[in-house]
Amino acid sequence: MTKIKIFSNIMKSDEDMADKNRQLFEQFHIPVINIMSSPGSGKTSLLEKTIMALGEKIRIAVLEGDLQTDRDAQRISKLNVQVAQINTDGACHLDANMVNKALSAFDFNKVDLFFIENVGNLVCPAGFDLGENWRVNLVSVPEGDDKVIKYPVIFRKCDVLLLNKIDLLPYVQFDRERFKKEAWDIRPDMKIMEISCLTGEGLSDWFAWLKKLVSKNNI
Amino acid sequence: MTKIKIFSNIMKSDEDMADKNRQLFEQFHIPVINIMSSPGSGKTSLLEKTIMALGEKIRIAVLEGDLQTDRDAQRISKLNVQVAQINTDGACHLDANMVNKALSAFDFNKVDLFFIENVGNLVCPAGFDLGENWRVNLVSVPEGDDKVIKYPVIFRKCDVLLLNKIDLLPYVQFDRERFKKEAWDIRPDMKIMEISCLTGEGLSDWFAWLKKLVSKNNI
Repeated sequence: MTKIKIFSNIMKSDEDMADKNRQLFEQFHIPVINIMSSPGSGKTSLLEKTIMALGEKIRIAVLEGDLQTDRDAQRISKLNVQVAQINTDGACHLDANMVNKALSAFDFNKVDLFFIENVGNLVCPAGFDLGENWRVNLVSVPEGDDKVIKYPVIFRKCDVLLLNKIDLLPYVQFDRERFKKEAWDIRPDMKIMEISCLTGEGLSDWFAWLKKLVSKNNI
Repeated sequence: MTKIKIFSNIMKSDEDMADKNRQLFEQFHIPVINIMSSPGSGKTSLLEKTIMALGEKIRIAVLEGDLQTDRDAQRISKLNVQVAQINTDGACHLDANMVNKALSAFDFNKVDLFFIENVGNLVCPAGFDLGENWRVNLVSVPEGDDKVIKYPVIFRKCDVLLLNKIDLLPYVQFDRERFKKEAWDIRPDMKIMEISCLTGEGLSDWFAWLKKLVSKNNI
C-alpha cells in the first residue's frame, strides 16, 4: 500500500507542477506544443524546418529533452532561437518538474511559440502532462503502418499526428489508408498531416496550423 | 527512504527471477536472445526471415512482448513455430517475472533456440535482465546514425548490433562509419552486422552466427 501512496503523491505533485507551467505560459499568451515520437522519427528535423520557415515572423523557443547528449539542442541553437536542454540522465520521459526547472532559462517576453521536444519514446511520455496546450506525435513511414494500434495510449492523447518521411513511401510497405483509419478509430478528431522534412512536401499545412495557433493567442 | 527500499526489493526479486529463467534455459541447453529496438526497426520481420531460413533445421520458439495487441505473435504463428504473447498492458518493457509466467506455454524439449522480442523502446528495456544469454539490438537506417550516442545505456549491454533496412541507405542521410565508430566507442567488442530484412542482404552473417550458437550449445 505504501508503494501506491508514494506513486500517487508523485503523480499529484507532477500534476500541480504541470498546472503551474500552464499558468506561466498563459500569462505570456504562448501556445506550447509537446512533440513526441519514437527515436529517429524526425522531431528535431521538424523543428529545424519550422524555425527556418517561420522564425523571422514568429519568435520560436525550444526546450530539448534527451537522455544524455545535447546534440539536438546544438542543432537548434545554430538557428539563433532561444533553446535549453534537459538531460534526463537515462530517464525515459520528461515530467512537469523537469520542465519547470528549465523554464528560467527563457525570456518569455520574447517568445511567441514554445516547443518541448520529448525523449524519443512511444510509451512512457504519454502519461506525463508537462503543461502543454497541444500534443503532436510524429510517426515516420519506415516505422510501419501498425504503430498507432500497437502504441495506442500515446495516440489517444494526440491532437496532431504528423506522418513524416513520406518521401520514402515508394521504397517501403506502408498502407496510408489503414494507418489513418486506425488513428481515427482511436481518436476521431485527430488532425493528420502527411509531411517530409527532407523534401518539404506537406509542411505548408503544418506551418499554416502553427500560424493560426499563434495569431489566435495574440488576439 | 522507503521508496528506495521498495524499488531495490522489486529489482532484487526480478534479478532472482532472471536467474531462475536462465537456469531453466540452461537445463534444456537453449541459447536465449533478447531482441530490443525502437518501435518499427524490424524486430518481427527479422524473426520471420530467420524462421523462414533456419526453421527446418533449428527448432525456433518466440516469446512476443507487446503493449496491447497480438499482431506480432499472429505474424510469427503463421510460420508454425511455438509462440506466446505477453501483453504488458501499457508497461514499457518486459521483466523477468512476466517472462517466467509465459514460459509454461512452451514445450522446451522441442526448442533449439529461443527469442524474446521486447517492447519497442530504446530506453526502458535496457535495465531488465530477463535471463537471456545474448542481447541483440536493431537500429534501422532511417532512424539516423546518432542513435547509439543518444541512447547509450541500451547499447552498452548490446552483444550484437544489427543495422537494418540498409536498402534505404541511398535515400537518407546516414554515415555508416560514424555509426559504427560510436558503437565501438561504447562497447569495443560489439558485433555489428549490416542487414536488410526486405532484400535479404547481409542476413547470411546473422544466420551463421545463430547456427554457431546452437551448435555450441548442443555439444
